[in-house]
Amino acid sequence: MNPIKVGLLGIGTVGGGTFQVLRRNQEEIRGRAGRGIEIAMVADLDVERARSIVGDACTVVGDAREVIANPEIDIVVELIGGYGIARTLVLDAIKAGKHVVTANKALLAVHGSEIFAAAREQGVMVAFEAAVAGGIPIIKALREGLTANRIEWIAGIINGTTNFILSEMRSKGLDFGTVLKEAQRLGYAEADPTFDIEGVDAAHKATIMSAIAFGIPVQFDQAHVEGITALQATDIKYAEQLGYRIKLLGIARRRENGIELRVHPTLIPAGRLIANVEGAMNAVLVQADAVGTTLYYGKGAGAEPTASAVIADLVDITRLATADPDHRVPHLAFQPDAMNDTPILPMDQVQTAFYLRLRVADQAGVLSSITTILAEHEISIDAVLQRESAEGESQTDLIILTHDTREGRMREALARMQALPTVLAPIVKLRKEELA
Amino acid sequence: MNPIKVGLLGIGTVGGGTFQVLRRNQEEIRGRAGRGIEIAMVADLDVERARSIVGDACTVVGDAREVIANPEIDIVVELIGGYGIARTLVLDAIKAGKHVVTANKALLAVHGSEIFAAAREQGVMVAFEAAVAGGIPIIKALREGLTANRIEWIAGIINGTTNFILSEMRSKGLDFGTVLKEAQRLGYAEADPTFDIEGVDAAHKATIMSAIAFGIPVQFDQAHVEGITALQATDIKYAEQLGYRIKLLGIARRRENGIELRVHPTLIPAGRLIANVEGAMNAVLVQADAVGTTLYYGKGAGAEPTASAVIADLVDITRLATADPDHRVPHLAFQPDAMNDTPILPMDQVQTAFYLRLRVADQAGVLSSITTILAEHEISIDAVLQRESAEGESQTDLIILTHDTREGRMREALARMQALPTVLAPIVKLRKEELA
Repeated sequence: MNPIKVGLLGIGTVGGGTFQVLRRNQEEIRGRAGRGIEIAMVADLDVERARSIVGDACTVVGDAREVIANPEIDIVVELIGGYGIARTLVLDAIKAGKHVVTANKALLAVHGSEIFAAAREQGVMVAFEAAVAGGIPIIKALREGLTANRIEWIAGIINGTTNFILSEMRSKGLDFGTVLKEAQRLGYAEADPTFDIEGVDAAHKATIMSAIAFGIPVQFDQAHVEGITALQATDIKYAEQLGYRIKLLGIARRRENGIELRVHPTLIPAGRLIANVEGAMNAVLVQADAVGTTLYYGKGAGAEPTASAVIADLVDITRLATADPDHRVPHLAFQPDAMNDTPILPMDQVQTAFYLRLRVADQAGVLSSITTILAEHEISIDAVLQRESAEGESQTDLIILTHDTREGRMREALARMQALPTVLAPIVKLRKEELA
Repeated sequence: MNPIKVGLLGIGTVGGGTFQVLRRNQEEIRGRAGRGIEIAMVADLDVERARSIVGDACTVVGDAREVIANPEIDIVVELIGGYGIARTLVLDAIKAGKHVVTANKALLAVHGSEIFAAAREQGVMVAFEAAVAGGIPIIKALREGLTANRIEWIAGIINGTTNFILSEMRSKGLDFGTVLKEAQRLGYAEADPTFDIEGVDAAHKATIMSAIAFGIPVQFDQAHVEGITALQATDIKYAEQLGYRIKLLGIARRRENGIELRVHPTLIPAGRLIANVEGAMNAVLVQADAVGTTLYYGKGAGAEPTASAVIADLVDITRLATADPDHRVPHLAFQPDAMNDTPILPMDQVQTAFYLRLRVADQAGVLSSITTILAEHEISIDAVLQRESAEGESQTDLIILTHDTREGRMREALARMQALPTVLAPIVKLRKEELA
């Protein structure tokens, strides 16, 4: 049987990795897929560089539209990134009847509904295992492996840059700025790290997972996005004393009245497996009604880990191309007519526990005035850590862990606590999840 | 579209769980699969009990052959277990043109080749996600998610009973016999726990994974099988002092001259994620060339976790039933003509590091005579832990960690050490893996 023909749009890190792995493991892959997979054409603005990577193995062009126009190409792999030209090319490829593989989480989190609708209309597949958690087959696990389950929540360390930074901050006691520079030097953070450290990248991925888990459309604009730039080494230390680690989690959780979709630094019990995921590694924890807790761990980025996911998609498409379109794996796990409109909850209605750090005057009655406010807002306290004030100092740190409450309630209580004359600095507020 | 019709052979724990989950989540599952999945017929020797579980929802019969003979049944789910009648029924179902789903690792590890050949001949699928690591979608991950990779090794905690026992022995310092009784009382170990504690169950699962990973036939008879019955609390304690945990691992590893396939108690560095998998939980660590290390964690047994895997298989079959048979996911990951005959290595040729505990006379020259023997067999030493002998005692424990060596070489060295007059008791030998 003829190999299936693939056109690559963009041959940077992931494109290069895909080309290398397909070549190195071609026999292995053909042995599994039952059909060869051939990169027949590559488009890249930098034609010279592209040619230096692929040699004479395939045609190189500067204009991606040539790949899309080529009737011999069965699958287009979009590795350009961003929402701009990538969106146009993906939609054009779909219109031309090509199946599409993409690693572009930003594009899918923002324009996924439009893209999936176009694909359904044309009867083609859009596959995106590489868009979430790199080489970890988490899309496949959620969409197929756990298909029997009602998924309750997903909590993921899905951005390697921020997990590397948090791991270093904790193990070395360094502050955010110092570690960020180290991460940039080591290549774990980009020159412009905004999307990573502000939580946007994690939110793109959490958005995609929320759609697959709960049968809702991708709605990145409804996600609460909070990064790690404001996180202080002090809080990592206090959290550790209380038995917690701080991780940037992407969380999608089903509640009675809607879906929580949020990315923020989160305290998790140090004994949980996911609390021990260090460095640039990713992990996704899934709670589902039948299977219980499962966890998926691996490299979330890099040339070959991401290529591993891209190629898995190529093989899946090769298999399912011959299946009745109505029986292929649906893009967002659920058949279009089985999607629902459960709302994503506004942040005020989200339920979590909290870690609060208050800089307070070291005098009688302070703890009582604060706990009274919490009680009046029906927020119950889990633990209090009162630091001895240093010799000659008249102020100290008061750390409070609460039980679960609504964010809106906490906001009101915080405003009142902040107004107390004995509270001497802006209160630090972090969320806490037991993940059990 | 009509629901796909399923016949259940055996409705014990897993069968009951499958029935419950399919009913509870039927809307969710239909929404994903695009087609309803209906248990239309159940066969169980205990017709009364079966009827008390399924009520009027479907036909109950006492003879499994009635299910197989029913032309309305599309998929037969075998949940009887064992190699006997289960083998006959699975082969008969295949001959009758039914797809088969089974959770029966023993059957597949021993008779897999015969069963898969029969299925290919009939153009039907045999799916067995539930046979390895319960609800964790590890078969799907290995066979589809990592399809781009050359898999280097797999190391799994794939038996919950033994992991529960080892966790308890470590955390409570108790001996094997005491903990086994506790495990039986809590339902984590069966009345006859032989298959679990002797490593047979783990070896069945490791055998199935070895075939999928390396494109070789299932060869349970070639597996090295060693359980935890001889393991002493003392060694768990010494291992901990040296920075290791002891886990019963199922290992399948590619070497230049063949495949290692073995189950035995193994020291692993305490910092590894898999070393922290506690209680009855399962986890599988996979090392592959493109993606690097990935880990899959979850419940390896129980009614609903296993049902989760059974139902995922039912949905997969529903999807792939309409696909060209040559493009379905191959039973053992590789297409039949791409399988290879790489041999499984005899244990003498297997390479691991070792933990040795020697009861020795507390006198000059003992350590030297032992290290000389190791040196003469080209076994290099990683660490030595020499216990102070207790007050008035003339003997002590000597613990040695070695670097990687061949098992055959170690056997020769051990025979010579054992013969030394200063070695006062049988030497305890455990294998150690860095898993990195």
